Amino acid sequence: MRILILGGDGYLGWPTSMHFARRGHEVHAVDNYLRRRSHVEAGTDSLTPIGESLPARARAFHEVTGLEIGVTEGDLCDWDVVERVFREFRPEAIVHYGEMPSAPYSMIDREHAVFTQTNNVVGTLNVLYAMAELTPDAHLVKLGTMGEYGTPNIDIEEGFIEIAHKGRSDVLPFPKLPGSMYHLTKVHDSHNIHFACRIWGLRSTDLNQGVVYGIETEETALDERLATRFDYDEVFGTALNRFCLQAVIGHPLTAYGRGGQTRGYLNILDTIQCIELAALNPPEAGEYRVFNQFTEQFSIMELAEHVQKAGAEVGIDVEVEHVDNPRVEMEDHYYNAAHTKLLDLGLRPHLLSETLIESMFAAIERHRDRVILDHIMPATRWRAVREGSAR
Amino acid sequence: MRILILGGDGYLGWPTSMHFARRGHEVHAVDNYLRRRSHVEAGTDSLTPIGESLPARARAFHEVTGLEIGVTEGDLCDWDVVERVFREFRPEAIVHYGEMPSAPYSMIDREHAVFTQTNNVVGTLNVLYAMAELTPDAHLVKLGTMGEYGTPNIDIEEGFIEIAHKGRSDVLPFPKLPGSMYHLTKVHDSHNIHFACRIWGLRSTDLNQGVVYGIETEETALDERLATRFDYDEVFGTALNRFCLQAVIGHPLTAYGRGGQTRGYLNILDTIQCIELAALNPPEAGEYRVFNQFTEQFSIMELAEHVQKAGAEVGIDVEVEHVDNPRVEMEDHYYNAAHTKLLDLGLRPHLLSETLIESMFAAIERHRDRVILDHIMPATRWRAVREGSAR
Repeated sequence: MRILILGGDGYLGWPTSMHFARRGHEVHAVDNYLRRRSHVEAGTDSLTPIGESLPARARAFHEVTGLEIGVTEGDLCDWDVVERVFREFRPEAIVHYGEMPSAPYSMIDREHAVFTQTNNVVGTLNVLYAMAELTPDAHLVKLGTMGEYGTPNIDIEEGFIEIAHKGRSDVLPFPKLPGSMYHLTKVHDSHNIHFACRIWGLRSTDLNQGVVYGIETEETALDERLATRFDYDEVFGTALNRFCLQAVIGHPLTAYGRGGQTRGYLNILDTIQCIELAALNPPEAGEYRVFNQFTEQFSIMELAEHVQKAGAEVGIDVEVEHVDNPRVEMEDHYYNAAHTKLLDLGLRPHLLSETLIESMFAAIERHRDRVILDHIMPATRWRAVREGSAR
Repeated sequence: MRILILGGDGYLGWPTSMHFARRGHEVHAVDNYLRRRSHVEAGTDSLTPIGESLPARARAFHEVTGLEIGVTEGDLCDWDVVERVFREFRPEAIVHYGEMPSAPYSMIDREHAVFTQTNNVVGTLNVLYAMAELTPDAHLVKLGTMGEYGTPNIDIEEGFIEIAHKGRSDVLPFPKLPGSMYHLTKVHDSHNIHFACRIWGLRSTDLNQGVVYGIETEETALDERLATRFDYDEVFGTALNRFCLQAVIGHPLTAYGRGGQTRGYLNILDTIQCIELAALNPPEAGEYRVFNQFTEQFSIMELAEHVQKAGAEVGIDVEVEHVDNPRVEMEDHYYNAAHTKLLDLGLRPHLLSETLIESMFAAIERHRDRVILDHIMPATRWRAVREGSAR
């Protein structure tokens, strides 16, 4: 299959590109290096050293495996880039990770909020128009987020819910309560993609993904030049990855608020499995389907306890610090989200274990000299819009 | 009260500005003339001649009434404009009509879709940040649309719905099924505004408005220089206004498809009443409330019959032509939308009557020499994305 990977230089995009290439697919990766630039601006960096560019990574992959990954360095908001890629590559499946993925980044100030919403919404609109014009039978596998749903007081279903109301009923999009300017963009995308499927007959799988953890996949392990990035800073890092790093360097785990916030989580190996299952089992023309892509639910304190236990196994004394929650979110709430559709397609989950956490410790330990301590504590505050700050 | 009217040069914005000024409020109107420019580009125009600019209209209003309306010619997507207006005027209420309001315009091609989504979403984000930074107690009265809901098979509630599901229940945002790139922007805005109320404690009333008809208000009738615009072309015109014009000029009424499409409608006099009721009864800090702003439901064929009957009264023989539906929408569907919240606040509806339609006939008749026939028939087709057209 010809598979286009948008955001192919990212934490998930690069391992996904390699995975499909190793399974005999024709892969083309696109990235505009937004993440790399943001790190340079903020003075942060990936824990793992990564290839200096997408072409450099593709060359290394070719040296190691003999396989090709096509690359385009370009911006999805630039229609000329999108149109050229679709015209020349004619993808059969599009895996779309190509968005600004950080909630704190989107909440820094007005400019970052406007950039995030414009960047994500316009990039995806361009992809939809390119599909409608050039590859109407292709399948869009779009990365959404479980954060679209927020924390409603009812079970979260997979994208749609049957609502019985005043003697009638309908199956309608599940209501959304996103928690940041970034999460809002994923909700906007969901509505835009659903519409494109309804009017143009496009087909799409929207993967509402939980928080991903892990540092290695089958392909990144082949050669150190094939490593994927690993972010732990307050802007691009996520809970479990950051906790593991904090444990290794002797920093207290930074639990935001009381730590009762419960979310879905999954191993990076399962992200790749899910993407592959979605791509190999496309929906019908005109169908917009949503899968909740995670394998387990944990509260922040449960995650912290897992890391503490794994630390104890290897002789690390792990402390937990409750820091003032920079976000506006419930810290103690009901949470039960359906996630059976990917299991039905054959997903075999890699559940969180002390062994996995210990192997993350070991991988992090190899790069501990690269850790930048300055940007681990949360700095971006959801409520902070003060005089002058909007500029 | 200091009331800022965004989109103050528009069909509703201009009469709203005059209405509040005549009731003793301090009014400042902002507009970037997007509608005027779009008409020039398309070769269309308002049926009614309108003042050549917002300052010219404000001068005429001053000559007629002795009252002031402050004006700013500027774009809400330009943060410097928004920040300056909020800093200098310090509004207590913001009535936000300042968006690109046409479904067909948004569906012309990719560029128009991207423009519409960027323009509406970014303008509203700028307003939210200006409020959070400069006027956190102000009340945002935002124009949404009944088109956000689409045509679900259950009763449409006002913004939120109580959902009982698997033994639990919650009151959640009503699911949305918008029918164009434009309608999608209103859904995006709703989510963004709701979020801003949740995290910054802003207060907002989102008015999901039906289709407005009518040509005169108390203030436009004072002097012909105070007329509001009246659009009947396929891009900016709406169903009943266009039908009345078609009846007057002897053009068959253009019913799209079978004409069973049912929507909420209201008189322009009631729009102004609703806006005033919302502004005078603000929600609590942090509250995001939604009112469905319409007074009656009609199918397209019911509207056509009303116009036929009114035509018969004044000796006009009105024909109805079913034209190929350019949109993707259900032509025969359940539709029952709640609209009691504005009635509870005191709305006294002006219901559609043959007398009203006849008075619209008369007002249209006065300007029939200005009618441009070329752009009445639908030209923009929802399904049309062909090779090359996305550019």
